Amino acid sequence: MEGSAENSVDAATSVEQQAEAVARAFVDHYYNLFDNSRPALAALYHHTSMLSFEGQKARGAEEIARRLAALPFDRCRHHVSTVDCQPSPASPGGILVFVSGCLQLPGEEHQLRFSQMFQLMPTPQGSFFVQNDIFRLVYG
Amino acid sequence: MEGSAENSVDAATSVEQQAEAVARAFVDHYYNLFDNSRPALAALYHHTSMLSFEGQKARGAEEIARRLAALPFDRCRHHVSTVDCQPSPASPGGILVFVSGCLQLPGEEHQLRFSQMFQLMPTPQGSFFVQNDIFRLVYG
Repeated sequence: MEGSAENSVDAATSVEQQAEAVARAFVDHYYNLFDNSRPALAALYHHTSMLSFEGQKARGAEEIARRLAALPFDRCRHHVSTVDCQPSPASPGGILVFVSGCLQLPGEEHQLRFSQMFQLMPTPQGSFFVQNDIFRLVYG
Repeated sequence: MEGSAENSVDAATSVEQQAEAVARAFVDHYYNLFDNSRPALAALYHHTSMLSFEGQKARGAEEIARRLAALPFDRCRHHVSTVDCQPSPASPGGILVFVSGCLQLPGEEHQLRFSQMFQLMPTPQGSFFVQNDIFRLVYG
């Protein structure tokens, strides 16, 4: 029994380590695309995906891509401060990712603080897509 | 066909409205318990629940309740600024809730900004428990 409890702890740790690696790679990739080739973000969403951006909702990769393209800033730089993640046990293979950081807009002296959460879901091809995306500026 | 497309849009809207009502009721209840009877929060978590509080992880209702009880502030007041929510389609009945707000600690002049996300899952009894909980202070 002791051995099986240890195995189960090891398995949980391994799932969490894998989730952490996926989350960090995703966050790097996502904000790199956002800042340098925003139209390419569309490929990270599916037709079932949901976005809430400052309370404005969009659904499906096409509408989400249009919404992100229409944001009132063309160029920006995201600086990530923290990345937290957890496996989403109710969705096999799903990963919840929670990001806090700053957003630098051109011509703005001060950075804007933001928080954003994603639910990533595995694809049959072995990669992940963004099922849920909620973004908020945090006013100081 | 037009009718069925309309029905499907209506159904999606209804699911989102229900999720919104659950999310708002949960947020009121959660922070009311946190600020006024923190030990009662344990009942909102299950043995599979996960908490990340400022990067510190806890797992299962008992450990999470101990962690929340051991926070270095006895009394606090949460003030909620925004509540966003989305259904979690990969987890039938699941709801993602994203909160931003301020935390007032006793003896502290300034409020601390925080962001927090929850994944709520339905119970067989028709209520919800917290499957995932990630909390971060947002430093200005």
